[in-house]
Amino acid sequence: MGLCAGAMRFFSDNAAPAHPKVLEAITAANRLDTAYDGDEWSKRLDGAFSDLFGTNVRAFWVTTGTAANCLALAALCPPYRAILCHRDAHIEVDEAGAPDFFTAGAKLILLDGEGAKITPASISEACGAIRKDVHQVQPAVVSITNATEYGLVYRASEIAAIGEVARDRDLALHVDGARLANAVASTGESLADLTWRAGVDALSFGFVKNGGLNAECIILFRSELADELAVRRKRAGHLLSKGRFLAAQVLAMLEDDLWLENARSANAAAKMVASAAPHRLVYPVEANEIFLKLSTEEAAHLRSIGFDFYDWGPGEIRLVTSWDQRGEALEQLAGAIRAL
Amino acid sequence: MGLCAGAMRFFSDNAAPAHPKVLEAITAANRLDTAYDGDEWSKRLDGAFSDLFGTNVRAFWVTTGTAANCLALAALCPPYRAILCHRDAHIEVDEAGAPDFFTAGAKLILLDGEGAKITPASISEACGAIRKDVHQVQPAVVSITNATEYGLVYRASEIAAIGEVARDRDLALHVDGARLANAVASTGESLADLTWRAGVDALSFGFVKNGGLNAECIILFRSELADELAVRRKRAGHLLSKGRFLAAQVLAMLEDDLWLENARSANAAAKMVASAAPHRLVYPVEANEIFLKLSTEEAAHLRSIGFDFYDWGPGEIRLVTSWDQRGEALEQLAGAIRAL
Amino acid sequence: MGLCAGAMRFFSDNAAPAHPKVLEAITAANRLDTAYDGDEWSKRLDGAFSDLFGTNVRAFWVTTGTAANCLALAALCPPYRAILCHRDAHIEVDEAGAPDFFTAGAKLILLDGEGAKITPASISEACGAIRKDVHQVQPAVVSITNATEYGLVYRASEIAAIGEVARDRDLALHVDGARLANAVASTGESLADLTWRAGVDALSFGFVKNGGLNAECIILFRSELADELAVRRKRAGHLLSKGRFLAAQVLAMLEDDLWLENARSANAAAKMVASAAPHRLVYPVEANEIFLKLSTEEAAHLRSIGFDFYDWGPGEIRLVTSWDQRGEALEQLAGAIRAL
Amino acid sequence: MGLCAGAMRFFSDNAAPAHPKVLEAITAANRLDTAYDGDEWSKRLDGAFSDLFGTNVRAFWVTTGTAANCLALAALCPPYRAILCHRDAHIEVDEAGAPDFFTAGAKLILLDGEGAKITPASISEACGAIRKDVHQVQPAVVSITNATEYGLVYRASEIAAIGEVARDRDLALHVDGARLANAVASTGESLADLTWRAGVDALSFGFVKNGGLNAECIILFRSELADELAVRRKRAGHLLSKGRFLAAQVLAMLEDDLWLENARSANAAAKMVASAAPHRLVYPVEANEIFLKLSTEEAAHLRSIGFDFYDWGPGEIRLVTSWDQRGEALEQLAGAIRAL
Repeated sequence: MGLCAGAMRFFSDNAAPAHPKVLEAITAANRLDTAYDGDEWSKRLDGAFSDLFGTNVRAFWVTTGTAANCLALAALCPPYRAILCHRDAHIEVDEAGAPDFFTAGAKLILLDGEGAKITPASISEACGAIRKDVHQVQPAVVSITNATEYGLVYRASEIAAIGEVARDRDLALHVDGARLANAVASTGESLADLTWRAGVDALSFGFVKNGGLNAECIILFRSELADELAVRRKRAGHLLSKGRFLAAQVLAMLEDDLWLENARSANAAAKMVASAAPHRLVYPVEANEIFLKLSTEEAAHLRSIGFDFYDWGPGEIRLVTSWDQRGEALEQLAGAIRAL
Repeated sequence: MGLCAGAMRFFSDNAAPAHPKVLEAITAANRLDTAYDGDEWSKRLDGAFSDLFGTNVRAFWVTTGTAANCLALAALCPPYRAILCHRDAHIEVDEAGAPDFFTAGAKLILLDGEGAKITPASISEACGAIRKDVHQVQPAVVSITNATEYGLVYRASEIAAIGEVARDRDLALHVDGARLANAVASTGESLADLTWRAGVDALSFGFVKNGGLNAECIILFRSELADELAVRRKRAGHLLSKGRFLAAQVLAMLEDDLWLENARSANAAAKMVASAAPHRLVYPVEANEIFLKLSTEEAAHLRSIGFDFYDWGPGEIRLVTSWDQRGEALEQLAGAIRAL
Repeated sequence: MGLCAGAMRFFSDNAAPAHPKVLEAITAANRLDTAYDGDEWSKRLDGAFSDLFGTNVRAFWVTTGTAANCLALAALCPPYRAILCHRDAHIEVDEAGAPDFFTAGAKLILLDGEGAKITPASISEACGAIRKDVHQVQPAVVSITNATEYGLVYRASEIAAIGEVARDRDLALHVDGARLANAVASTGESLADLTWRAGVDALSFGFVKNGGLNAECIILFRSELADELAVRRKRAGHLLSKGRFLAAQVLAMLEDDLWLENARSANAAAKMVASAAPHRLVYPVEANEIFLKLSTEEAAHLRSIGFDFYDWGPGEIRLVTSWDQRGEALEQLAGAIRAL
Repeated sequence: MGLCAGAMRFFSDNAAPAHPKVLEAITAANRLDTAYDGDEWSKRLDGAFSDLFGTNVRAFWVTTGTAANCLALAALCPPYRAILCHRDAHIEVDEAGAPDFFTAGAKLILLDGEGAKITPASISEACGAIRKDVHQVQPAVVSITNATEYGLVYRASEIAAIGEVARDRDLALHVDGARLANAVASTGESLADLTWRAGVDALSFGFVKNGGLNAECIILFRSELADELAVRRKRAGHLLSKGRFLAAQVLAMLEDDLWLENARSANAAAKMVASAAPHRLVYPVEANEIFLKLSTEEAAHLRSIGFDFYDWGPGEIRLVTSWDQRGEALEQLAGAIRAL
């Protein structure tokens, strides 16, 4: 069809290439500098993110979303307490028990909710079911994913409501923002409103799914946690000795809001595909993931003409669009879905 | 002096730039592929290292030496046992307690020995001092660093002797090979002789100090540990989603023995500097580290004319040479030391 | 009413006194002997339990059911795997996250099932939902409670069926037997049939709720785990220095099957109370726990005339009978319930 | 010789029987009460110890010194920091790595010092050798043992000096008081002066070696740690369900200062034995332990006439006296040593 194979693959935004500007930044950083995070690029991160968020933050590069989530959670949750999250949260189902490892045994308490979203009511209900004694594990943190594992987004007002119930119950609030850029692009709301103004204490800010190579960032809105987090990062083997290559990637993503531009592309791609089959959507398409109801035969047909994706339970598939997917391939996919 | 600043800095091989071929490999890998370690580059690692070592091995990329060391140690040592290592081993003094974290509480038992080297005798003595009861922590692993933290190397025969005492006492043997390339370049002995033929079970094979960007490798000589290690890597947040960028680096380092060529350069640079002051050497220079006796005034003078390095206790400094340090700068440093 | 206060309290079998023979045994053991578990009483445990179970077992005293459960689970489950248990299992809801602590982060995967019982089908379903990759935590152990937290018992055939599915899936099988004596008394089946013949690998054999003072036992049916368990017990601070006082209690409980006699008394007491209100029972009464549907007013009335018990959710109460509750008090309670 | 075998054994104060008043208290507590630590005896502990120490404290029973030490240390030391203690401290050499387990991986930094005593100077030296960066583990706690593992005692002024350097360096101070009673009996100084007035934050107060059966106490001088400690105790399986039997023991030990009387007896016994061979003493005898220089033949002779004890390295033996050793047996031992 004249398209490169990549354009036909909708497995995961993890599989997409890095943006050229990210590679350029790595190349430009390839000179001698201080090891670990003492280099000039790493030192610019706090300032760059403080500008971006409109408040003083501390920023720590790491190489994976799992590390970002779990280092932040370990700083927020002692070993003998619990993290409230959705039953389908990445930290529960896709991180091999990393939260248990990083926190040294904190418990995940699983909440229900449509499209992997949790609500103030579900938090209150879960907390209310826990006896306040030493026999039951008491919660310390709420963790939400924005955009969620099913491609839904939390609006700022929704997060603020969660932040309020968290504060009332003395719980910290963490956001797994592996696709936060997509949530910002989708809602049009500011990073500030979606995070610290809503009561968020720590954020995993994802770049790898959005055109980065191998750099994510932990953003702390409570600077008193920074020293501990720095130690935990080292102790977990996540303090790279040539950290400048991570910092440079992140700075390239921030420059001229490349992070936002990429997310808009991916979201637009998802919208276009979704528009081909509104009646097949399992969830509204608010970010860059599309869950479709498809029969086994229909899925097989799509694959037979070159499209790749995950099966997601019986009769459903998941398509994920990436920052680099544009134009012809999307139209072909949309056309193929319409033609089913 | 007409030299770039980098050429004058002898802080650490961690500070050096990545080799151009490593960057080229990253760029070449920048296309869509399967996420995590399902890509074509990652899949080639086992074969490439098996060829290199002349035996079947399992290879796992990670981003730091700390992760390489501690994931391997966690697979070899249960939480309730101990790792024997030198008092100055990197895992003891420079990894923020990462071995304790990854193993969930295994103990490090510290041995003495000149230049951070341990011997069969020191292992036997340490083991002999431990009562065989439930009150004292029983050892499970010996870990050595080659080249050592003081730039000495173990010959194959020395490692084989350690391997023998380890086997006799039912201890696994791990090598922290952050600078294994330098040891190979120094001894002229084969990777096989320095590792599995000497009884080594697991190896942290360093590339970052030797021209890599951010990829190290864990090499398992006991394939039955591979499944557990794969899980532990993920659980520790060290399974990168775009793993191809790590695998490609490593493959570039292996191609045409770039790893060995770089190490030879760094070692030669160290030899040249060392030759300027044989009477000042704290240890023989066998790899790419030089420890010199220098008065405070002499150290200050060297710095005043542009050379950077670490103080290493009173009256000593440490200089580390890198793969990219050649020619003029080294001659200037040698000259300056001679002139002290 | 001429009854001592104790006779009117149905909070928990934990609250009951120790049996006089247990106290006598402690007194008799009050002479100098070897510390820890080197004394003559402790040394008799393996033999005594091997006789009782009709197979070679290893027995370890500990002071709590939580310690018994979690030491056994830690020996069966590595930190990076999971334990399948019922959503209402004591290890999940009443041990403060102890399984996470002792195993260094293993996950509990929660199954549903009437009366806190799980089935081969629920195990298979849970396992089937787990992808066999490094991202999801793989199970290693099934843990059941017999009698369950709701006073139901597993028959030997039910456990054998669970044992079979566990074996097929390479899962170990653990029984929390805090009230195993009550299950034996209830089913009339043998300890052997209810444990090792059904595929059980490790058992927490409870005595404290059944007339003991502060000694429980871990019974290992796989002797190769014994060395590790001994170390873990010490490491967790559960190797008492005057262990003879625990061993003596346990031996007293075994003598003339006191454990069985006490359990029969408690079960009979529960039956008598239950017979007063068959239509109010939430679950069949198979051991020594009675869950009754009672209005708030009815519960208040029972309390007003001197009976104590727990509320168990809205409109339900829990009564637990003990080895020492007989005769008049039970008749009064039964009468009071009938009169409601 | 007309003596019971026990009187001739000097292995350990762990091997001695419990004091009759302790057994009486257990018997007296053998009636129904609230489970865990809600009973009347447990509730009296805080008050009883607050009176004893002359300040408000929180007291928690546990069954072993290892549990007391390690629960307290876990409350004082985060997983990523270190505990400074003597190289021969019980927590280092005799607790199977329990501190590593309870703290989830904190490091023990080992200090030297005669007779297992540490000093402000050795603390300062150890701290001074640690770089203040994320690569090296930073200390959080100092732990001392009083009386020490070699039977020496710290005077109040020595502890106060340690407390001062600890406070200056922001380190908490813990005392392993397995034989604190012996230290009080030896120095004649008050519990208050030996603990909180000297800056101690948490104390393991031993009773088992001093006539108790199986109850020790953690004393917190910082009440803000109490809630966490209560959770940690439960989570470690150390919250016994019939806690009244532990609390009753402890209260019996406090009544009429039985703890002090017992310790005086044991100390006096040690003095008498020591007086037989002042020139053979390895350390001054300040508590209830005697380390003697004895040839192999001499040790064998003592054993041949009925005395039991530990060899303690070549040419040394350890004798420990207990609360119940008086009169004739001690004279016989003293005589036998004199006659060597």
